[in-house]
Amino acid sequence: MLKGSLLVAQGGGPTAVINQSLVGVVLAAMEYDCIDKIYGSWHGVEGIKNGTLADLTNVSKEHLEQVAETTGSAMLSTRVRPDKEYCKKMFENMKKLNIRYFFYVGGNDSSDTVRIVSEYAEQEGYDLRAVHIPKTIDNDLVLSDHTPGYASAAKYVAYAFMGADFDNRALAGVYIGVIMGRHAGFLTGAAALGRANSEAGPHLLYFPERAFDLDDFVRDVKACYEKYGRCVIAVSEGISDKDGTPIVTKLASESEKDQHGNVQLSGTGALGDYLANYIKENTGISRVRADTLGYMQRAFSAAVSDVDAMEARAAGEFGVHVALGASSDSEEMRSSLEVRSKSSEETSVVITSQEIPRSFSVGIERAGDAPYESRMFVTEIANIAAKTRLMPKSFINEAGNNVTEKFVKYAEPLLGEDFKKGTPLVAPEVNIK
Amino acid sequence: MLKGSLLVAQGGGPTAVINQSLVGVVLAAMEYDCIDKIYGSWHGVEGIKNGTLADLTNVSKEHLEQVAETTGSAMLSTRVRPDKEYCKKMFENMKKLNIRYFFYVGGNDSSDTVRIVSEYAEQEGYDLRAVHIPKTIDNDLVLSDHTPGYASAAKYVAYAFMGADFDNRALAGVYIGVIMGRHAGFLTGAAALGRANSEAGPHLLYFPERAFDLDDFVRDVKACYEKYGRCVIAVSEGISDKDGTPIVTKLASESEKDQHGNVQLSGTGALGDYLANYIKENTGISRVRADTLGYMQRAFSAAVSDVDAMEARAAGEFGVHVALGASSDSEEMRSSLEVRSKSSEETSVVITSQEIPRSFSVGIERAGDAPYESRMFVTEIANIAAKTRLMPKSFINEAGNNVTEKFVKYAEPLLGEDFKKGTPLVAPEVNIK
Repeated sequence: MLKGSLLVAQGGGPTAVINQSLVGVVLAAMEYDCIDKIYGSWHGVEGIKNGTLADLTNVSKEHLEQVAETTGSAMLSTRVRPDKEYCKKMFENMKKLNIRYFFYVGGNDSSDTVRIVSEYAEQEGYDLRAVHIPKTIDNDLVLSDHTPGYASAAKYVAYAFMGADFDNRALAGVYIGVIMGRHAGFLTGAAALGRANSEAGPHLLYFPERAFDLDDFVRDVKACYEKYGRCVIAVSEGISDKDGTPIVTKLASESEKDQHGNVQLSGTGALGDYLANYIKENTGISRVRADTLGYMQRAFSAAVSDVDAMEARAAGEFGVHVALGASSDSEEMRSSLEVRSKSSEETSVVITSQEIPRSFSVGIERAGDAPYESRMFVTEIANIAAKTRLMPKSFINEAGNNVTEKFVKYAEPLLGEDFKKGTPLVAPEVNIK
Repeated sequence: MLKGSLLVAQGGGPTAVINQSLVGVVLAAMEYDCIDKIYGSWHGVEGIKNGTLADLTNVSKEHLEQVAETTGSAMLSTRVRPDKEYCKKMFENMKKLNIRYFFYVGGNDSSDTVRIVSEYAEQEGYDLRAVHIPKTIDNDLVLSDHTPGYASAAKYVAYAFMGADFDNRALAGVYIGVIMGRHAGFLTGAAALGRANSEAGPHLLYFPERAFDLDDFVRDVKACYEKYGRCVIAVSEGISDKDGTPIVTKLASESEKDQHGNVQLSGTGALGDYLANYIKENTGISRVRADTLGYMQRAFSAAVSDVDAMEARAAGEFGVHVALGASSDSEEMRSSLEVRSKSSEETSVVITSQEIPRSFSVGIERAGDAPYESRMFVTEIANIAAKTRLMPKSFINEAGNNVTEKFVKYAEPLLGEDFKKGTPLVAPEVNIK
């Protein structure tokens, strides 16, 4: 069994529960005698390269539990993609500290970083277990039923649109809410989960998976406004035209890109304002408002899903137990762990400790719907690294402007049991003679 | 004692707890035998004029309690300001239904509507009790310590900035959040209430009460960025230049106004984007993001303050008990009620039932700080109608870019006991040899 130190770090955009995964890794690692020290790296891989690390070995459980309930990335984050030269510097420090277990909590891009680090270790003949713990509010990692971080963001979006819809009933007009999601519309779909009844908004939803056409948009809004006297609209920031060009990039004079080649979509109200003005000009409706939901979607602690918090914690713990427990010298630890593995879109299968990959990602699959149940599995990094899952066709209606019942059935259980819809007032009419 | 029917309606922008006041009025009115019917008017005064009313007399308490916990204005709202012709039509319907008690839940503009309706009744010699139940997220009604609706919006803003600040720690840069508030900066100040420690953001706050200068702004941001490597900024949508012109109106080609003369400030990301671009261009900082917090501020049910919900309910109930109970024929009802009244900024005084004005507004004053306690008072409509309270000077620091400790002490208890701050991770540094 591989003895040494463990290092954990966080990459990419924070979520409301990414610290649950961090703390899950640390607390689980504390159980193993073969782990010498537990390090945290500040700002993802940057801290490993620069030697700015925290010693988490003796941090109190009480403090860790408080951190776990805090949004944002407690070890701070990065969007750096390490190249060979970068890896070389990282491994100089890793060797000095005898780091044999590398845990990286992140999304698509971070899983690719785990692949890069793992391949570098292999080339160097350095024995390293590299584990990717998933997080992304976009819910766009392949193989998993859903990803830690998504459910809390979805709960925020559902409450936001529930509130916006009750607001829009009171002072009628057109309301547009722009939602995060570069390529996948899962988070935009969540806007539908707070609908209080069949007349409730959002009445129209637009996803990156379907080509966005301004003429269709105006026609949809006009029809809705004629029917309800108002219209609430959920739009993904990633909506693109039929050639795949994001609408928002047409508006920005200069686009900002990170090292993974991603164009900035969030942190600006441009798309919402553009669509609001377009509707004003092309429908004659005067009261048109646009909100861009912004960073609250991944950072709002009062809308954390308990299902999400629990699963994010479990994903971190599971990663450690698989990497350590399954090959543990202790009979007790080994026997308590059933390791499932997945190589395709099919259900996972139980594997033996010999079959556990040196480098893997943790995934979640659904194990039951009523009551909701899930279980963790592992998959080789190459199966998910830098891949993007989109909404299945069955989650979007034919017209491409709404979710289906199938999506609602999929997403609703993830919000947790305390998610509560509002109640519109129902009372008899008065006849004035 | 005046017998007849009671009508309740809601005006202006909804809040997260305005339905608590509505339900407070209805449930309290149900206790009085002299009330024949309890009507709700759809869309504020519009329903009275158009004869679109709901009969709330026999709506179940269970349903009302569900409505009370729902955000938005359950009876829907309006921004109409009734003129004489409008009042004439309203009173035709009011007379037909023998409405003798008129309750209007709303802000500054709605209190002015109560004044107008009350004066019209007096001119017509129609015996009417007109009562204004306060609500506004802006917290800008005079005489009151604070206004129902503010505390929940403040709790939302505090959580939003707490989350945005943890997010900004993880991926450093400049973050600008634009907050509702036309003239008063109380809600913007609430952004400071979620600060986890002395280095936490928002580091800079800008209020409508102080002239906003772009050069000062750039200098402040540069200084903050040099100190912390990042900068989180809370900006009121109502910030204005030294001549009192709102910055946002300089950006909009055409401004939209309501009947009360208010220019549209919300429902657009223009101000945030403008400030973000200005900072990018004038500081050389590349990662600058702006969110406009939008309608969630007044509509997010998962951030309702229990203090706010309780007081909003109590304000509605108190209004009914004063209008009816204090002059009740029942000794028991009369004696249980202590009516306080306020005519200036001083503490309220207890008055007799003979001294209760025919038309009044309900206010809240603070009765204790540790533990927090409040009590209701009444004041003549003319004392508050269409008046606007601004932040006291002692709530803003000398430089005009932060709140004071006095503000924090004032606002913090209003968020309720379940408001919870996040915890940044603290752990020893690692020395790599």
